[in-house]
Amino acid sequence: MSDLLEPLFGDPEVSAHFTDLAQVRAMLAVEVALAHALSETGIAPSASAAAVDRAARTEAFDLAALAAGAGRAGNLAIPLVEQLVARVAAIDPEASKVVHHGATSQDILDTGLVLQLRAAIPIVVARLRRIEQAAADLARRHATTVMPARTWLQQATPTTFGLKAAGWSDAVGRCARRLEIAAAAAEVLQLGGAAGTLAALGDRGVAVAEALGRRLQLPVPALPWHAHRDRFAELGCALGIATGELGKIGRDLALLAQTEVGEVAEAASGGSSTRPQKRNPIGAAVALAASHRAPGLVATLLSAMVHEHERGIGGWQAEWETLPQLIRLTGGAARAVADAVATLVVDPERMGSNLERSDGLISAEAVATALAPKLGRPRAYALVAAACRRAAAEHVHLRVALDREPEIAAALGASDLDRLFRPESYLGSTAALIERTLGRRQERPGPDA
Amino acid sequence: MSDLLEPLFGDPEVSAHFTDLAQVRAMLAVEVALAHALSETGIAPSASAAAVDRAARTEAFDLAALAAGAGRAGNLAIPLVEQLVARVAAIDPEASKVVHHGATSQDILDTGLVLQLRAAIPIVVARLRRIEQAAADLARRHATTVMPARTWLQQATPTTFGLKAAGWSDAVGRCARRLEIAAAAAEVLQLGGAAGTLAALGDRGVAVAEALGRRLQLPVPALPWHAHRDRFAELGCALGIATGELGKIGRDLALLAQTEVGEVAEAASGGSSTRPQKRNPIGAAVALAASHRAPGLVATLLSAMVHEHERGIGGWQAEWETLPQLIRLTGGAARAVADAVATLVVDPERMGSNLERSDGLISAEAVATALAPKLGRPRAYALVAAACRRAAAEHVHLRVALDREPEIAAALGASDLDRLFRPESYLGSTAALIERTLGRRQERPGPDA
Amino acid sequence: MSDLLEPLFGDPEVSAHFTDLAQVRAMLAVEVALAHALSETGIAPSASAAAVDRAARTEAFDLAALAAGAGRAGNLAIPLVEQLVARVAAIDPEASKVVHHGATSQDILDTGLVLQLRAAIPIVVARLRRIEQAAADLARRHATTVMPARTWLQQATPTTFGLKAAGWSDAVGRCARRLEIAAAAAEVLQLGGAAGTLAALGDRGVAVAEALGRRLQLPVPALPWHAHRDRFAELGCALGIATGELGKIGRDLALLAQTEVGEVAEAASGGSSTRPQKRNPIGAAVALAASHRAPGLVATLLSAMVHEHERGIGGWQAEWETLPQLIRLTGGAARAVADAVATLVVDPERMGSNLERSDGLISAEAVATALAPKLGRPRAYALVAAACRRAAAEHVHLRVALDREPEIAAALGASDLDRLFRPESYLGSTAALIERTLGRRQERPGPDA
Amino acid sequence: MSDLLEPLFGDPEVSAHFTDLAQVRAMLAVEVALAHALSETGIAPSASAAAVDRAARTEAFDLAALAAGAGRAGNLAIPLVEQLVARVAAIDPEASKVVHHGATSQDILDTGLVLQLRAAIPIVVARLRRIEQAAADLARRHATTVMPARTWLQQATPTTFGLKAAGWSDAVGRCARRLEIAAAAAEVLQLGGAAGTLAALGDRGVAVAEALGRRLQLPVPALPWHAHRDRFAELGCALGIATGELGKIGRDLALLAQTEVGEVAEAASGGSSTRPQKRNPIGAAVALAASHRAPGLVATLLSAMVHEHERGIGGWQAEWETLPQLIRLTGGAARAVADAVATLVVDPERMGSNLERSDGLISAEAVATALAPKLGRPRAYALVAAACRRAAAEHVHLRVALDREPEIAAALGASDLDRLFRPESYLGSTAALIERTLGRRQERPGPDA
Repeated sequence: MSDLLEPLFGDPEVSAHFTDLAQVRAMLAVEVALAHALSETGIAPSASAAAVDRAARTEAFDLAALAAGAGRAGNLAIPLVEQLVARVAAIDPEASKVVHHGATSQDILDTGLVLQLRAAIPIVVARLRRIEQAAADLARRHATTVMPARTWLQQATPTTFGLKAAGWSDAVGRCARRLEIAAAAAEVLQLGGAAGTLAALGDRGVAVAEALGRRLQLPVPALPWHAHRDRFAELGCALGIATGELGKIGRDLALLAQTEVGEVAEAASGGSSTRPQKRNPIGAAVALAASHRAPGLVATLLSAMVHEHERGIGGWQAEWETLPQLIRLTGGAARAVADAVATLVVDPERMGSNLERSDGLISAEAVATALAPKLGRPRAYALVAAACRRAAAEHVHLRVALDREPEIAAALGASDLDRLFRPESYLGSTAALIERTLGRRQERPGPDA
Repeated sequence: MSDLLEPLFGDPEVSAHFTDLAQVRAMLAVEVALAHALSETGIAPSASAAAVDRAARTEAFDLAALAAGAGRAGNLAIPLVEQLVARVAAIDPEASKVVHHGATSQDILDTGLVLQLRAAIPIVVARLRRIEQAAADLARRHATTVMPARTWLQQATPTTFGLKAAGWSDAVGRCARRLEIAAAAAEVLQLGGAAGTLAALGDRGVAVAEALGRRLQLPVPALPWHAHRDRFAELGCALGIATGELGKIGRDLALLAQTEVGEVAEAASGGSSTRPQKRNPIGAAVALAASHRAPGLVATLLSAMVHEHERGIGGWQAEWETLPQLIRLTGGAARAVADAVATLVVDPERMGSNLERSDGLISAEAVATALAPKLGRPRAYALVAAACRRAAAEHVHLRVALDREPEIAAALGASDLDRLFRPESYLGSTAALIERTLGRRQERPGPDA
Repeated sequence: MSDLLEPLFGDPEVSAHFTDLAQVRAMLAVEVALAHALSETGIAPSASAAAVDRAARTEAFDLAALAAGAGRAGNLAIPLVEQLVARVAAIDPEASKVVHHGATSQDILDTGLVLQLRAAIPIVVARLRRIEQAAADLARRHATTVMPARTWLQQATPTTFGLKAAGWSDAVGRCARRLEIAAAAAEVLQLGGAAGTLAALGDRGVAVAEALGRRLQLPVPALPWHAHRDRFAELGCALGIATGELGKIGRDLALLAQTEVGEVAEAASGGSSTRPQKRNPIGAAVALAASHRAPGLVATLLSAMVHEHERGIGGWQAEWETLPQLIRLTGGAARAVADAVATLVVDPERMGSNLERSDGLISAEAVATALAPKLGRPRAYALVAAACRRAAAEHVHLRVALDREPEIAAALGASDLDRLFRPESYLGSTAALIERTLGRRQERPGPDA
Repeated sequence: MSDLLEPLFGDPEVSAHFTDLAQVRAMLAVEVALAHALSETGIAPSASAAAVDRAARTEAFDLAALAAGAGRAGNLAIPLVEQLVARVAAIDPEASKVVHHGATSQDILDTGLVLQLRAAIPIVVARLRRIEQAAADLARRHATTVMPARTWLQQATPTTFGLKAAGWSDAVGRCARRLEIAAAAAEVLQLGGAAGTLAALGDRGVAVAEALGRRLQLPVPALPWHAHRDRFAELGCALGIATGELGKIGRDLALLAQTEVGEVAEAASGGSSTRPQKRNPIGAAVALAASHRAPGLVATLLSAMVHEHERGIGGWQAEWETLPQLIRLTGGAARAVADAVATLVVDPERMGSNLERSDGLISAEAVATALAPKLGRPRAYALVAAACRRAAAEHVHLRVALDREPEIAAALGASDLDRLFRPESYLGSTAALIERTLGRRQERPGPDA
């Protein structure tokens, strides 16, 4: 992500875990923990771990040399190990002999990335939980705020803003949970050595892996997974799904904020370089932009799963920037939507007046449903549809068109019709559904309760 | 999927659930169950359910008229309901009045698709479980079959074919489990009525939904989810991840089957229209083709999540063919890989002889690792790397090149070197890792145990 | 594409070229032309071509057997050649000896697909040209129909519907031209034999290729291209770009047709299974659905370009269904948008009244621009922006808020302000831009002039 | 792109045009040119252009403030214009009044990006031309270097390395040309003002656009294209196609460099952190990684084409980082492949010995083709296929198996068979095809001739 666009598209707390320095720091943390694990298992003298520990000061590493070295060697771990060995040798030449022992580049790169994920994903989850909560608050507050429901972008029937917000809360809550599960599955140790056999560690490979896992507080899976990337792919998918849902909320916000609709506004709307009156829904735009970008990044992760034998050529390398980028975009979109939803300016009056914008057509289903038991569903719908067509053609209110139809008048009295044209009388299970949603949230254990 | 290519790319059992007839059957099953639910909740007379039941004979529906009607109306449910109403009316005019009552097209389409998923996904899972089992069998059988591990498509160190197969089994097992979980999450009822409020059902909307859920044996979620597609997206992702892993196995098979490698062959290899000798690895090709196609389909599902308000325009419609296509491709790839792995022709002799193909370079790490404690890791690696370069330049065996280097001779005796050049002496934790993998499989409860 | 959804998502004329029968017919056309080319070049007796010609009756082929054979052999050409040989042998045993001589499966499959493309793409182009023309007509007719321009979905300044339609016409015209160019580049002969050397044809390979190219009226490129798929990828991209533009028009139509906007309607709007009043913009939905699906299909074609050596394993096979599907979706979207645009119901009155919906804010830029030469751009914008905020906060017209600001009153008189609030006075180069667009269309040669 | 990975994945000359500074510089170049255009057309005093010119020193701008401002305002142009106005005001307060006059943020961002493209794309094209040339050189040099052709990763028939290299050259040449054409189409001026009407420029909008186009040496299209992104999408597609072809070459290189194949090696192969002997094909890996990433980025550009009305919300913003990233990846892949191909180490001896690896099976088609005129193609193929199966089963050379078959012996003499088993006798049109390819290159005019 360009530094210039980071404040717009990113989340500073998430991005802090994906700087160049943060990556080097994570890789060094793996090397240090490995030195300790080698000591613990008696493969290296215990003094060596201390020397590696002292040498592995991220700030002391020459990043430009690392970059140039990666360009030559094909990955970052090779030049990092070179610099680390040199630094350890200056402290304790004996210790330098065991640096990186038993590991291969991919062990350091993969496990390093896992450490970065473990730090960053909870922030993304927290952003999603904030949206879930803020939308639940809106759902409670606006449980009876009547507004038009829209399908195919046409006014369909009345609904409440509370039900819409409950839908956001419910879906984002699932996305947060899914992301937690995927992250937990992905946050496991990778240690396989040159080709997954741990051969350089003789018969102590599994013991070293267990010791390293304990040090890093990472579970040790049955097998090294260097050439099987399904866990990272699952994490990428969970991010992509969350971004899709954030895009859905962003789309709703952008549509509701249209000049002609005006039912909500983002509190911190953006300006324009030319139009003094503009209040652009920036949070919505950030989420929508991310929802355009995430699917392609997820597709890359899936396509990159097809590794060759014990280490991929191309597929593995394609992951390196893609997964961090996806996390940052999702984090940024979650931050933007959280801000937008938590401070959303809602205009219930405008929602009410927009219900009047269809000349009564929004109540057509209510009337047809009331007629159905009397005339049968097909006849009822045909009659009301004809009245709708007449109302539209003659620019009259649906009520007027209905009144001209004796078959309807015979079936429904004037007071029935009056009631049917009151949107708040045709909300069905709206309140019950909001209740269910908010209730189920509270039943759930955990940090989001 | 074209009928001509179905036997190659598909799985007949999976595809049977995604024919045009199967889709109509599933939608009718929802309408029938709805009629019963309306009766149970006292909204419709109980006789009406029986009439709908009788009328909803899939074979009696005019598919060409449905297709033409969908072209006009924008979805399949509208013409289906029209045909159903007409058929019910012929049986019981009163009953025809309550057909589809309370539901909207999307309820029928979404819940119908859920019924199709529920039938088809277990077949895909079973195919994956078959691969998991067959690969576990290979892992056990070939636990000590030594072969070259390859990274970046270069011989790296020795490994065993058992460890490679264990990696396949382990990863495919996770893919099967992930797919089961995603399917369970996605297989929930959708009933929202026109815009998600269940308004046409008055105050009995939730009761009808619960009755319908019981009838169809589908859980009823807190909220209708017509505009929140994360569950379908998760299912699509689980399919995409499985296909990625199948592509990885296919890639391994294709590479191992190369003329110059020849370590495995598919039992049922394909021919050629021109080359009499060809034995093409078709199972691998099917899996690889699917792994090229699935990422784009998953990206479509993610991009399509951005629905507008209470019903998407474009995004929803984009799902209709994409999700079934993805299921069929994954099913076909799983079938093809299951066949290939279960009947794989393995050539341990060739694996052994290929270990000789590097003029001893494959043992370079073993030698360097043995030298490291004596000379330090950096010095050891530098010496061995220099010997490797000389061996390659002069086309001599690495052993010869090493023998010329006095520093190495001083550190390692001839018998040590002899041992280090025996691949079976440098397998590290291979056996233990296979054990762990097979052991963890057996610990797992469930149908695959 | 499912038969049930073909009338909605497809174009019957395009799809006719991608049925199973059409594919077999195209492949047989290649085999027949090859027989003639072999005769012409003296490789086969001239009688053999006549026999192949007679035998290659598409209707006589057993499609189910072809499908089953492809499942075993890995492609359709192998069983097709088997059936063809048998049929030729029944007519002329000698002739059967030269069937398929010199060619390989991929030659028949690739060149067959090229023949299908050559038939289908011009139909897609014609649909795009129809949109270009219909939008140009709208541009001319509505050159002075004033409406709100909207950026970020907020009313920005006035524009004309003619300018919007000119934008559609201009962009779709480019898409049509790009598709023609890409199709012309892709429609070349593929004949390489088993591995691209034409070895089975001895020293007459190039001569046969030239003869075959003449027969099929296809250019013969410098080299067989079986493993280099850039031409098909370019065609897929041109389709994807066209679909993206169709999606843009579909999005505009859907937004303009919103109940709260109501500036256009599709003449043949769809209904609803529950809401009698609904007029769903189906053409827009079809285009938007295609615009969600095409990017993933294009990504598949690009990812599938990475063929192995002289014939891909996986990548080639991934193309087989993807390119036809993409053509069909683009064709269907073009048909739907052509119908929608050509019969679009435009409501200039509603466009005019919507200009009033912003309480004068839509004229903010006009006022600020008029003030800028007097007060400087920054001061002018700051003053107007403050007035906009006050107008919004106090729910008054911008004119009222401006009148309260003495600095503005001093700079602009009342009659100036009156004029600035007339949208038709702030249309800038709208007319000239429409002229340029329509003029450039007429300058172009060709069928669309 | 991370700075740490830029030397591996990028091209320093290309990336130099996509730094944060480079973007600011390009945007300022547009503002400066606009000031001149406003002066030329008499809208602004000529002194103002000089002041803007002086003020627009990229180095003087506060990038952190720009980033923060973009986070608030939603795009980079708004804070850039603010800083520019302040800097101009310090020089010439009158001049500050006309900064950015008539333009909107998108004009500056889009046209600025066009300037960046114009500088960067020719470098990518030059890299591709270098590959085209280097591969053509290989084609000429190795026109008669016989090697196995491989289809489905199985040895198929003999070919020459020259023909393979000619295929690379031919395809990359097309990719370079396609990219030039797409860039030329995309490099046009965007100036539309607030909503595409150029209203703030009164009746001089088109004149200003023409003057600005002249200043920037950019063609002025018929219409502003802010909401029609097909030109950028076409450019993205051309980059994606080029990357796909680079991936194909990378795949070929990686496969040819396999330990078991060993026919080529990259001169500057990478090392390993653990295996002293490794020579990893890094150029191939870089190209393959890019070929995994580009399809998703192209899909994003296509999906992002669906802009809303006169300015997209989400789609436009999604482009900002995606197109530069795609250019950088393509540039990096082209650089890596150019280096690899230009210095490729080819081992003709190994190619020859690999032809022996199939125990004669690679000559099966040659034998069958020679038999076909005598026995008929079906019988000939059946006989040879049977011999192939026997040869494989009994581990004997195909020649041995053929000799046992009296029908074959009767049709072909021993010396015929001897000849057929010499690979160089079965090269068909290889030489002629290479000639055609190299000849057509020389016929082409332009910088690559």
